[in-house]
Amino acid sequence: MLKARVIVTLKNGVLDPQGKAIEGALGGLGFEGVDHVRQGKVFDLQLDTEDRAAAETQLKAMCEKLLANTVIEDYIINVT
Amino acid sequence: MLKARVIVTLKNGVLDPQGKAIEGALGGLGFEGVDHVRQGKVFDLQLDTEDRAAAETQLKAMCEKLLANTVIEDYIINVT
Repeated sequence: MLKARVIVTLKNGVLDPQGKAIEGALGGLGFEGVDHVRQGKVFDLQLDTEDRAAAETQLKAMCEKLLANTVIEDYIINVT
Repeated sequence: MLKARVIVTLKNGVLDPQGKAIEGALGGLGFEGVDHVRQGKVFDLQLDTEDRAAAETQLKAMCEKLLANTVIEDYIINVT
């Protein structure tokens, strides 16, 4: 059994209104000097295999098909 | 200027219907042996300081006040 973490973030240049809202809220709470806030998603999964290479291939397919919208999002896969 | 990544995940034991839905969708797409899917959030920020210790203190305060609901969520701070 392998554990994996997939981090999906918006590509550079894609507008992130949610990140902007968080940036504004942080400013409103008195946090100074916070900039370029971007929000993404993280997925933690358990895979019923011991083959890391196979797991990474499977995770890449999951990202391409479901977890990320590769038109506007990048993803990083970490198998532990 | 420091860059930071904050990862917010649900605590163990907290139900994650969104993660369950993703798990079901992955199964429906033919991905076998995927279990314990949990979804969390990731925040990328830029801080206008060079003081890592101060940045970490500030980020911790941001998590406690806004980025995470510490009743049900854990957070990890990485300053790079």
